[in-house]
Amino acid sequence: MKELSAAIVAGLAALAAGYGNGQVISKTLESMARQPELSGQLRGTMLLGVGLIEAVPIIAIAISFLILFA
Amino acid sequence: MKELSAAIVAGLAALAAGYGNGQVISKTLESMARQPELSGQLRGTMLLGVGLIEAVPIIAIAISFLILFA
Amino acid sequence: MKELSAAIVAGLAALAAGYGNGQVISKTLESMARQPELSGQLRGTMLLGVGLIEAVPIIAIAISFLILFA
Amino acid sequence: MKELSAAIVAGLAALAAGYGNGQVISKTLESMARQPELSGQLRGTMLLGVGLIEAVPIIAIAISFLILFA
Amino acid sequence: MKELSAAIVAGLAALAAGYGNGQVISKTLESMARQPELSGQLRGTMLLGVGLIEAVPIIAIAISFLILFA
Amino acid sequence: MKELSAAIVAGLAALAAGYGNGQVISKTLESMARQPELSGQLRGTMLLGVGLIEAVPIIAIAISFLILFA
Amino acid sequence: MKELSAAIVAGLAALAAGYGNGQVISKTLESMARQPELSGQLRGTMLLGVGLIEAVPIIAIAISFLILFA
Amino acid sequence: MKELSAAIVAGLAALAAGYGNGQVISKTLESMARQPELSGQLRGTMLLGVGLIEAVPIIAIAISFLILFA
Amino acid sequence: MKELSAAIVAGLAALAAGYGNGQVISKTLESMARQPELSGQLRGTMLLGVGLIEAVPIIAIAISFLILFA
Amino acid sequence: MKELSAAIVAGLAALAAGYGNGQVISKTLESMARQPELSGQLRGTMLLGVGLIEAVPIIAIAISFLILFA
Amino acid sequence: MKELSAAIVAGLAALAAGYGNGQVISKTLESMARQPELSGQLRGTMLLGVGLIEAVPIIAIAISFLILFA
Amino acid sequence: MKELSAAIVAGLAALAAGYGNGQVISKTLESMARQPELSGQLRGTMLLGVGLIEAVPIIAIAISFLILFA
Amino acid sequence: MKELSAAIVAGLAALAAGYGNGQVISKTLESMARQPELSGQLRGTMLLGVGLIEAVPIIAIAISFLILFA
Amino acid sequence: MKELSAAIVAGLAALAAGYGNGQVISKTLESMARQPELSGQLRGTMLLGVGLIEAVPIIAIAISFLILFA
Repeated sequence: MKELSAAIVAGLAALAAGYGNGQVISKTLESMARQPELSGQLRGTMLLGVGLIEAVPIIAIAISFLILFA
Repeated sequence: MKELSAAIVAGLAALAAGYGNGQVISKTLESMARQPELSGQLRGTMLLGVGLIEAVPIIAIAISFLILFA
Repeated sequence: MKELSAAIVAGLAALAAGYGNGQVISKTLESMARQPELSGQLRGTMLLGVGLIEAVPIIAIAISFLILFA
Repeated sequence: MKELSAAIVAGLAALAAGYGNGQVISKTLESMARQPELSGQLRGTMLLGVGLIEAVPIIAIAISFLILFA
Repeated sequence: MKELSAAIVAGLAALAAGYGNGQVISKTLESMARQPELSGQLRGTMLLGVGLIEAVPIIAIAISFLILFA
Repeated sequence: MKELSAAIVAGLAALAAGYGNGQVISKTLESMARQPELSGQLRGTMLLGVGLIEAVPIIAIAISFLILFA
Repeated sequence: MKELSAAIVAGLAALAAGYGNGQVISKTLESMARQPELSGQLRGTMLLGVGLIEAVPIIAIAISFLILFA
Repeated sequence: MKELSAAIVAGLAALAAGYGNGQVISKTLESMARQPELSGQLRGTMLLGVGLIEAVPIIAIAISFLILFA
Repeated sequence: MKELSAAIVAGLAALAAGYGNGQVISKTLESMARQPELSGQLRGTMLLGVGLIEAVPIIAIAISFLILFA
Repeated sequence: MKELSAAIVAGLAALAAGYGNGQVISKTLESMARQPELSGQLRGTMLLGVGLIEAVPIIAIAISFLILFA
Repeated sequence: MKELSAAIVAGLAALAAGYGNGQVISKTLESMARQPELSGQLRGTMLLGVGLIEAVPIIAIAISFLILFA
Repeated sequence: MKELSAAIVAGLAALAAGYGNGQVISKTLESMARQPELSGQLRGTMLLGVGLIEAVPIIAIAISFLILFA
Repeated sequence: MKELSAAIVAGLAALAAGYGNGQVISKTLESMARQPELSGQLRGTMLLGVGLIEAVPIIAIAISFLILFA
Repeated sequence: MKELSAAIVAGLAALAAGYGNGQVISKTLESMARQPELSGQLRGTMLLGVGLIEAVPIIAIAISFLILFA
C-alpha cells in the first residue's frame, strides 16, 4: 500500500503543477506579445507566480518521499 | 490505510492550490498587460489572494501530516 | 476508516475553497484593471466574499478534525 | 461507516457552497465594476443570495453532525 | 447503510440547490446592473424562483431525516 | 438496500429539478431585463414551465417514499 | 435488487425530463422576449414539445412502478 | 438481474430521447422566432424529426418490457 | 448476464441514435430558417442522413435481440 | 462473458458511428445552406465520408458477431 | 477474458476512427463551401488524412483478431 | 491478464493517434482553404506532424505485440 | 500484474504525446497560414517543442519496457 | 503492487508534462506569428517555462524509479 500511496500523491502533484504552470506561463507569453515593453516585469511576476504555485505540490512530493521511506 | 489517506488529502490539496493559484496569477498577468500603471496594486492583491486561497489547502496538508504521524 | 474519512472531507473542502476563491479573486483583479478608481471597494467586497465562501469549508475542516480525534 | 457518511455529506456541502457562492460573488464584483453607483444595492442582494444558497448546505452540515454524534 | 444513504441524499440535495440558486442569483445581479430601475421586480422574481428551486431539495432533505431516524 | 435506493432516486430528482429550474428561471430574469414590458407574460410562462419540469421529479420523490415505506 | 432498479430508472427519467424541458422552456422564454407578438404560437409549440419530450420518461416511470410492484 | 437490466435500458432510452428531443424542439422554437412565416413548415419538420429520434429509444423500451416479462 | 448485455447494447444504441439524429435534425431546422427556398432539398438530405446514422444502431438493436433470444 | 463482450463492442461501434456521422451530416447541411449551388458536390463528399467513417465500426460489428457465434 | 479484451480494443478503435474521421471530413466540407474552386485538392488531402488516421485503429483491429483467434 | 493488457494499450494508442491526427489534419484543411497558395508547404508540415504524433502510439502498439507474444 | 502496469504506462504516455503534439502542430499550421514568411522559424520552434513534449512520455515508455522485462 | 504504482506515477507525470508543455509551446507559436520581431525573447521564455513545468513531473519520474528499484 505504501508504494501506491506515494504514486498517487506524486502523480496528483505533477498534474497540479503542470496545470497551474501551464496556465500562468502561456498567459505570460500572450501578454508579452501584446505589451513587449513590459516583458521584464511580466517575467518577474511569472517567476513569483510559479514559485507560489509549486509550493503545495512540492510539499506533496515531500509527503510522497515520507510515505515511501519513513 | 494511513498512507493512502495521507496521499489522497495531500493530492487533492495540491490540485486545489494549483487550480486556484493558476486562475488568479494568470488573470493578474493579463490585467498587468492591459493596465501597466496598476501593476503594483495588482501584484499586491494577487499576493493577498494567493494567501487566502492557500489557507484551506495548507490546513489539509497539516491534516495529511497528522494522519501520517499522529 | 477514520483516516480515509478525514482525508476525503478535508480534500473536498480544499477543492471547494480553491475553486470558489479562485473565481472571486480573479474576477476582482479583472474588475480592478477595468475600473482602477473602484479598487478599494472591490477589494473590500472580495474580502467579504472570501470570508463567506470559506465558511462551509472551514466547518468541513472542523468535521475532519472531529472524525480524526473524537 | 458513520465517519465515511459524515465525510461525504460535509464534503459535498462544501463543494455546493463553494460553487454557488463563487458564481454569485464573482458576478457581483463584475456588476459593481460596470455600474459603480449601484454597489450598495448589489452588495445587499449578494448577501441575501449567499444566505439563500447556504441554507441547504448548512442543513447538510447539521446532518453530518447528526450522523457523527447521534 | 442508513447513514450512507442519508449522506448521499443530503449531499446531492445541497449540490442541486447550490447549482440552481447560483445560476438564478448571479443572473439576477447581472440583470440588475443592466436595468437598475427594474431591481425590485427582479429581486421579487428571484425570491420566487429560489423558493421554487429549493422545493425538491428540501423534500430530499426531509427524506434524509426520515432515513436517519425513521 | 431500501434506504440506498430511496436516497439515489431522491438525490437524482433534486439534481434534475435544480438543473431544469435553474435554466428556466435564470433565462426568465434575463428576458425580463431585456423586455421589461413583457414581465407579466414571462413570469406566467415561467410558472407554467416550472410546473411542467417538476412533474417527473415529483413522481420520482413519490417513488422514493414508496420504496422507503411500502 | 428490485428497489435499486426502480430507483435507477426513475432517477434517470427525472434527469432526462429535467434536461429536455429545461432546454425547451428556456428557449421559449428567450424567443418570446425577442418576438413578443409570437408568444401564443411559441407557447403552443412549447406545450407540444414538452408532451413529446415527456413521453419516454413517463414510460420509464411506468416501468419503475412495474419493477416495484409487479 | 432482470430488473436491473430493464432499469438500465429504460433509463438510457429516456436520456437519449430527452437529449435528442430537447435539441430539436429548442432549435425549432429559435427558428420560429427568427422566421415566423415558416412556422408551419418548421413544426412539420420538428414532428417528423421527433418521430425519427424516438424510433430507437422506443425499441429500447420494448426491449425493456421483453427483459422484464419474457 | 444475457439480460444485462442486451440492456447495455440497446441503451448505447439509443444514446447514439439520439445524439446523431438530434445534431442532424436541429441543424436542418436552423438551415431551413436561414434558406427557406432550400427546404425540400435540406429535408431530403436530412432523411438520407438519418438513415445513414441509424444503420449501425439498428444493427446493435438486432444484436440485442440475438443476445436475448438466441 | 461472451454476451457482455459482444454488447460492449457493438455499443461502442454504434456510439462511434453516431458521433462521426452526426458531425459530418450536420456540417453538410450547414454548408448546403451557405452555398446552395454546391449541394451535389457536398452530398457526394458526405456519402464518401460516411462510408469512410463507418468502415471501422462495421468491422467492430463483425467482431461482435464473431464473439457471439464463433 | 479473451472475448472481453477483443471487445475493448475493437470498441476503442471504432471510437478513435469515428472521432478523427468526423473531425477531418466535417472540416473538409466546411472548407469546400468556403473555397469551392479548391474542392479537388481538399478532397485529396481528406483521403490522405483519413488513411493516416485509420492506420493505428486498423492495427488495433488486427490485434483484436489476434486476441480472438491466436 | 495478458490479453486485457494488450487490449488496453492498443486501444489507448488508437485513441491518442485518432485525436492527435484529427486535430492536425483538420487544421491543415482549414489553413489550405484560407491560404490556397501555401498548400504544398502545409501538406508537407502535416505529413511531418503526423509522423511525429504517431511515434509514441506506434511504440505502444509494439508494446502491445510484446505483451501478447513475448 | 506486470503486463497490466506496462500497458497503463504506455497507454497514458501515448495519450500525453498525442494531446501535446496535436496542440503544438495544429497551432503551427494555423500560424504558418497567417504568416507564411515565418514558416521556417515556426517549423523550427515546432520541432524543438515536439522534442520537449516527448521527453517525459519517452521516459515513461522506457519505464514500460523496464516493468516488462526487468 | 510495485509495478502498478510505478506505472501510475509515470503515466500521470507524462500527462502533466504533455498538457503543460502543449499549452505553453502552442501559445509561443501563436505569439511568434503575431509579433515576429519578439521571437527570440518568446523562445527564451518558452524554454524557461518548459523547464519550470517539467520540474515536478521529473521528480515524479524519479519517484517511479525509486518505487521500481528501491
